[in-house]
Amino acid sequence: MSPAAESAQLRVAAPETDRAATPAAAAADSPVLATARRARIAATELAPLPRTPRDTALLAIADALEARVDEILAANAEDVARAREAGTSASIVDRLTLTPERVAAIASDVRDVVALPDPVGEVVRGSTLPNGLDLRQVRVPLGVVGIIYEARPNVTVDAAALCLKSGNAVLLRGSSSAHRSNTALVAVLRDAVAGAGLPADAVQLVPGESRESVHELMRARGLVDVLIPRGGAALIRTVVENSTVPVIETGVGNCHIYVDERADLDRAVEIVVTAKAERPSVCNSVETVLVHRAVADALLPRLLAALTEAGVTVHGDAAWGAAGAAAGVAVAEATDEDWAEEYLGPHLAAAVVPDLDAAVAHIRRWSSGHTEAILTADTAAARRFVSLVDSAAVMVNASTRFTDGGQFGFGAEIGISTQKLHARGPMGLPELTSTKYVVTGDGHTRG
Amino acid sequence: MSPAAESAQLRVAAPETDRAATPAAAAADSPVLATARRARIAATELAPLPRTPRDTALLAIADALEARVDEILAANAEDVARAREAGTSASIVDRLTLTPERVAAIASDVRDVVALPDPVGEVVRGSTLPNGLDLRQVRVPLGVVGIIYEARPNVTVDAAALCLKSGNAVLLRGSSSAHRSNTALVAVLRDAVAGAGLPADAVQLVPGESRESVHELMRARGLVDVLIPRGGAALIRTVVENSTVPVIETGVGNCHIYVDERADLDRAVEIVVTAKAERPSVCNSVETVLVHRAVADALLPRLLAALTEAGVTVHGDAAWGAAGAAAGVAVAEATDEDWAEEYLGPHLAAAVVPDLDAAVAHIRRWSSGHTEAILTADTAAARRFVSLVDSAAVMVNASTRFTDGGQFGFGAEIGISTQKLHARGPMGLPELTSTKYVVTGDGHTRG
Repeated sequence: MSPAAESAQLRVAAPETDRAATPAAAAADSPVLATARRARIAATELAPLPRTPRDTALLAIADALEARVDEILAANAEDVARAREAGTSASIVDRLTLTPERVAAIASDVRDVVALPDPVGEVVRGSTLPNGLDLRQVRVPLGVVGIIYEARPNVTVDAAALCLKSGNAVLLRGSSSAHRSNTALVAVLRDAVAGAGLPADAVQLVPGESRESVHELMRARGLVDVLIPRGGAALIRTVVENSTVPVIETGVGNCHIYVDERADLDRAVEIVVTAKAERPSVCNSVETVLVHRAVADALLPRLLAALTEAGVTVHGDAAWGAAGAAAGVAVAEATDEDWAEEYLGPHLAAAVVPDLDAAVAHIRRWSSGHTEAILTADTAAARRFVSLVDSAAVMVNASTRFTDGGQFGFGAEIGISTQKLHARGPMGLPELTSTKYVVTGDGHTRG
Repeated sequence: MSPAAESAQLRVAAPETDRAATPAAAAADSPVLATARRARIAATELAPLPRTPRDTALLAIADALEARVDEILAANAEDVARAREAGTSASIVDRLTLTPERVAAIASDVRDVVALPDPVGEVVRGSTLPNGLDLRQVRVPLGVVGIIYEARPNVTVDAAALCLKSGNAVLLRGSSSAHRSNTALVAVLRDAVAGAGLPADAVQLVPGESRESVHELMRARGLVDVLIPRGGAALIRTVVENSTVPVIETGVGNCHIYVDERADLDRAVEIVVTAKAERPSVCNSVETVLVHRAVADALLPRLLAALTEAGVTVHGDAAWGAAGAAAGVAVAEATDEDWAEEYLGPHLAAAVVPDLDAAVAHIRRWSSGHTEAILTADTAAARRFVSLVDSAAVMVNASTRFTDGGQFGFGAEIGISTQKLHARGPMGLPELTSTKYVVTGDGHTRG
């Protein structure tokens, strides 16, 4: 059967029969709620589809991105021109900018998603119960996923591709600085999805550029199944505080590296410096280094030299200040703000601690729960650190930079969850699903 | 090492070093927040403990419940006397009442929990990455679990036992009608936990009987990791609307049975009647039956006779009304309120539908997403129903009453989730955990 016929065959609930889509509710709809309601209906059509029609739509998206690159670049050029006029920083303009090569890379990423295993329909557990009932727990799509994100237009396509692959409808709420680019991209995505016989409303941009439209999205409980804010701490806090829709917090990474008394100091210098300087703008870069006092005299001068050479400013405690003075390196005085800060830039907070437990206590107080690392040759110290630190990822003798869906072998990533419910750490396709129990019997009654 | 020594050895963060427990925050605490803060500290101590000290504490609880039964019954007798004076219904008084046998059964249930597999430390997935890093995803406790529940004092012990078994601290917020019973039970639990060397604050009653104390609990984000309301739809809606703490919705069951045109009608009568009448007060009992019109003439008279004999009032559509008139059985006229209602009593909504898709459309509009069943001999119909119905459990030729942690072989159940995030359907011990990634290398750097 063709994907279109398959989709048509599985179309059951007319909008007016779905509780979420009653005429009375629809009449009162704002543009945001109307969009969410269309997404709900599209999700109902997507959920029962097998893999092939979803993959067909994704391949159509990849082809369409390449075929319509001029249209996409023209819209993007307008966003870039406006950003330049507004005096936006060069690094943000760079993130915003699309080129033919970048669009080709985005299309290639979509094809990579097609190749990933289908999470939908996976049997998570199953057994035959003592009474003969067959029990299966099966992965199903979440339904409608809302993504709130900032600058980069590639997220628009990445998020839509991951949601489609996992059978979900997606509501995209990008930043106003990328509005023209996102509008052009979503038009391409919707045409490709519809051309493949799936509902175009599986991919929608949330209308309106005001804060009010985000607020409406956050209150659309019953229409939206989960909201994933991707961005700075302030955005995430706003969503968490105001949303009645369930939220998955992502991406705020105040990550720590603790250098134990039995660490290999050569490796420690290399790990700390690369974890900070290789790509400081990402959430898994290190923001604070904690050094056991037994190795401080040997390590601090070397770390200060290497960090300075890498262009990193150290915000240190008294011990680091003294080491800086001795080495002729300027060390800023660390305050509570530094311990709490996710710099995302060439700054590093630094302290000397009396022992492992003090490092753990510091991490418990200040960490955002993303990733912490211990560097040590001591197995007991490694075990204790892993046991006591409650973060999404705990590294032993490895850089914090490895917390990443691609590095973990998940093939793709919708974000890195720093919360404990539903998903924790890098979120791949399975984290975009729920499950349902399917129980099959021969007329079994209970009692 | 003794459990007490083990616990002491793993005690690291002094309260003042934990971010959640800074003196500034503590100074502003209300009684509810102070309780939550103590729970947070207890959770930090519990999390790294292996199985043995947790099981030891649970066995101590079971013994203490038996040893101190007189004290528990005396407190319970006061609650029961007050409830009788207030004119509470006999069925609620019965739920509230403890007897020596019931306390013994509660203690026995705690021993059953001891015997269950430990969810903490289970490796959910693991691999060696291409670069040689060892990746493990390991179950860890959620932290602090808040339970808001009604009448029955056995929930106090059940919930505490499941939370302790899974390494969590628990905040218990029962109903004021069971306040004396709960206070006595929690005193017994805390003494037993402390006697086993674990922090007594792992089990606490939320102080205050006002709604304000529930409201404070719902806003204690950062101190409480998850709230699980167990009770009626109104309670759950209030918590969902007002909580900044993540919530798991449980237990509202507007369950449907659809009798397909190819169902075995003898089995259909037996399944529908027992699913309604065997124990109508539970969430997995059936509330609406939908009958394919091809079998309506044959089935409706039989179902009406059997339901009437079982003391069930049918609230039916026109077809059911006509069948009732022909059979001399009173059928109430069903309204939208009936389709939406979770009766939890001897009432059943009933409709005749033209086909399977109409049954699915009815379920999509009215179901609470708990459990729906199809009775059919037709494999294609069964597959279509399973595919199109999006509820926590979908039954094929089996009663809705099987959606239950005990029936599913989970050994215990903290509730039945009707939401899609984190847990869906019966929640056993694994659903009371989160995970963390543990990544081990040899000084791996990235970039």
